[in-house]
Amino acid sequence: MDENAPIRVYMTRKLIGVSPDDPVKRACEVMMEFDIGSLVVVENGEVVGFFTKTDIIRRVVIPGKPNTTPVREIMTKKLITADANAPLREVLDTMAKKRIKHILISENGKIVGIFSLSDLLTASRRKLETAIAAE
Amino acid sequence: MDENAPIRVYMTRKLIGVSPDDPVKRACEVMMEFDIGSLVVVENGEVVGFFTKTDIIRRVVIPGKPNTTPVREIMTKKLITADANAPLREVLDTMAKKRIKHILISENGKIVGIFSLSDLLTASRRKLETAIAAE
Repeated sequence: MDENAPIRVYMTRKLIGVSPDDPVKRACEVMMEFDIGSLVVVENGEVVGFFTKTDIIRRVVIPGKPNTTPVREIMTKKLITADANAPLREVLDTMAKKRIKHILISENGKIVGIFSLSDLLTASRRKLETAIAAE
Repeated sequence: MDENAPIRVYMTRKLIGVSPDDPVKRACEVMMEFDIGSLVVVENGEVVGFFTKTDIIRRVVIPGKPNTTPVREIMTKKLITADANAPLREVLDTMAKKRIKHILISENGKIVGIFSLSDLLTASRRKLETAIAAE
């Protein structure tokens, strides 16, 4: 990993989204299908919310809400973003300070990707593979 | 991060556990309180199970089970462990291949800690701070 490289190098461009009216159960199934820990909520082509497995635990399981609860009731509307040109170390620092494991990446005011700690694992492996290949 | 360093350097020694009879709701509250994504299940001083937020999503939220379901019904009994002396890169490789974000660390057949992707973030920041301090 090059901690000075822009986060765009490490982010995932494919955003997986659900509708605000989708039930929590459907959102969970999408998370399991794609093996991801967060989803964006999209309405009329705009990202209107975001939520993670932690939000589901905190806002559905603990209060005992049914899995038919619509996503809009549990999503976070205030999006935390990092600029696509921000260096990896700055983004990691923000994530550590805010204690978050996923962050949306924006460019010219538009959400263009997401970065998660799993991407750090991928980056770490990639570096390792490069190192082995160079031996 | 030194990818050749033994995982014991990066693991967390403090294991947070619940009882197999604890309801899922209680387990979720413990996860939120300590800001962690997994818990060990302890019975008579022995680790008898393990589970993550993903297990809660998959085995409680999707099938619509109540949050009063006892932890023993949703825990994973087959524990995945790495040896405390295994190098970080080997452990990261195992985690990436098995697509897991938490792994139990054992020493002489006993569970002595846990390593999660969040620890990788901590390690990455620590290295960064060291680099800055050395400038």
